[in-house]
Amino acid sequence: MVVLLDQTRLPAEEVELVCTDVPALVEAIRSLAVRGAPLLGLAGAYGVALAAARGYDVTDAAEQLRHARPTAVNLGYGVSRAERAFRVAADGGAGYERAAAAALAEARALHREDAAASERMAAHGLALLGELLPGGGYRVLTHCNTGALVSGGGGTAFGVVRAAHRAGELRRLWVDETRPLLQGARLTAYEAAREGMAYTVLADNAAGSLFAAGEVDAVLIGADRIAADGSVANKIGSYPLAVLARYHHVPFVVVAPMTTVDLETADGGSIEVEQRPGHEVTEFAPPTVPGAGAEPGSGIPVAPLGAQAYNPAFDVTPAELVTAIVTERGVVSPVTGDALAELCSPSPSPREKSRSGNGMMDA
Amino acid sequence: MVVLLDQTRLPAEEVELVCTDVPALVEAIRSLAVRGAPLLGLAGAYGVALAAARGYDVTDAAEQLRHARPTAVNLGYGVSRAERAFRVAADGGAGYERAAAAALAEARALHREDAAASERMAAHGLALLGELLPGGGYRVLTHCNTGALVSGGGGTAFGVVRAAHRAGELRRLWVDETRPLLQGARLTAYEAAREGMAYTVLADNAAGSLFAAGEVDAVLIGADRIAADGSVANKIGSYPLAVLARYHHVPFVVVAPMTTVDLETADGGSIEVEQRPGHEVTEFAPPTVPGAGAEPGSGIPVAPLGAQAYNPAFDVTPAELVTAIVTERGVVSPVTGDALAELCSPSPSPREKSRSGNGMMDA
Repeated sequence: MVVLLDQTRLPAEEVELVCTDVPALVEAIRSLAVRGAPLLGLAGAYGVALAAARGYDVTDAAEQLRHARPTAVNLGYGVSRAERAFRVAADGGAGYERAAAAALAEARALHREDAAASERMAAHGLALLGELLPGGGYRVLTHCNTGALVSGGGGTAFGVVRAAHRAGELRRLWVDETRPLLQGARLTAYEAAREGMAYTVLADNAAGSLFAAGEVDAVLIGADRIAADGSVANKIGSYPLAVLARYHHVPFVVVAPMTTVDLETADGGSIEVEQRPGHEVTEFAPPTVPGAGAEPGSGIPVAPLGAQAYNPAFDVTPAELVTAIVTERGVVSPVTGDALAELCSPSPSPREKSRSGNGMMDA
Repeated sequence: MVVLLDQTRLPAEEVELVCTDVPALVEAIRSLAVRGAPLLGLAGAYGVALAAARGYDVTDAAEQLRHARPTAVNLGYGVSRAERAFRVAADGGAGYERAAAAALAEARALHREDAAASERMAAHGLALLGELLPGGGYRVLTHCNTGALVSGGGGTAFGVVRAAHRAGELRRLWVDETRPLLQGARLTAYEAAREGMAYTVLADNAAGSLFAAGEVDAVLIGADRIAADGSVANKIGSYPLAVLARYHHVPFVVVAPMTTVDLETADGGSIEVEQRPGHEVTEFAPPTVPGAGAEPGSGIPVAPLGAQAYNPAFDVTPAELVTAIVTERGVVSPVTGDALAELCSPSPSPREKSRSGNGMMDA
């Protein structure tokens, strides 16, 4: 079985969700009980391992998991890794049990790699902040949730923020509440509070005033998919922050593991953006009420009956608005297709910890 | 007594709030049961008339009402009009009762003027849309609530939208939900539904995707105060829309009565922005529950206990991001201090219905 922390119930309660089969895990992914790009990769890999261990059809389980949500590339990546490990073992003449064990071992390897990548991203990101903002004492704005809840390690953007905090260089974390599902207010604030950070929650639309008042030194966000041209799909509301950051000459930094970079997707326009149900906007689902928000009509209405809502889960920020992309292999800045391709090339070690661009930020 | 529609309960219920004294009305203003710049002017004027009719100290009542909320200039304007009418009558030797009647007559006059101004703003705004967007079939994005609920007439920005709808030229109204108190989802959607408009609600942070997809032809918003330099204070979230509109070359139009223009406030930096309690962000107050949200702890928590929130009620958009200001006296575009001063000069009639600028939009 796969045991998850049910993120829809935070910060009201810490509830474990036990998935004993693949359909339950798919439902947990769809309902966002488990969410966040790196964690979706782990969920996918462990899901395949679960199917193998329980004797389900592994190909069928992998297909179901792979298509549970469309935008985060990590989900398909994790599924494929575990599925391939299973196939290779099975095709190599290992018995079913040993093939299942191979799938689980692969999921665990991904888990360890993810934790290690978190640490390296945090180190690269902290070094980048030091270059961009030599004065220290950072006031960082973040969006959605990118911490330990979504990762085998300390997270992506939040991992960098945490490193800055532990280095005594975080003056304030501005936490976008992140409508409609409030992952910022519910999850990032929860992680910030646990870390003892100085943090402040705000309605997403109040970020403009902070920029105008000069209260934001840098924006740090994660990513669900980075296309070959450097376009970044991330939680809805990221793109307006990128436009505001550009207008106010504030660095806009994306922190994501290499597994989020998808060279198969040519550009931002080719990224499939998940459209979520309108009732996530027109109804409020209290985190205190188990299952609220799962179906239309199960939340508290905040719009007239029958109101239609536009509810894309993600938006796409073009490369020219991204100051830098921080990965476990190093920092890409300026963000170009060539620089990304170079980072993804099989022999990345000479570039490790070095900037693949000219080393100067344009923000 | 003053009878108000309690806007905190919409769209769940249409509840009348009866204020029999000034403190009750002040509380209704502070709690946003009555809100919206033009309506605050009427509430202020009727409040003074109420105080006079009940034999309270009119000066004291006027002071209380004037300072109930700081940003909307209309509140103080309405209070002063009714108070002056009372004073002039009293100083002219009218008895107390006739002075009180003069205050009420002035409040009613303001009410009629407001309705007439709404009509003229709608006509000017519709003409402006026709110039800016000669193709017709407008897709308008609006923020917060600016309709009949906040006005003696059809409203400000919403009044223009309604005129476009009635002229068969509104293709879609994009309704920003307007966090934290959801005046867009609760109130504007309610008014749009009643008018039979094609409308769609969205989380404020989803507006960026609409701009990027070319789905917004114009942004129309109201204003709480317009400074002498043309800076516009309006509901938090307006400024990010102005930045997005500029980035995407979409007209950003402010619709407000002349009473919102405050030449005594030199510039945007001099506008006092009301900071509202953090629990409006960190707790959700269901419109279905009377009194929810009035005090910290009375709503449903959506952030960790003790989370601090940044909750300015307004932001300020500089004149250079505003394509045009539509008033009942005509349209100012480009928006400059000189053009505003000219519009406010005592003999506005030659400029009525004409643009005070060069007539060309830069968006």
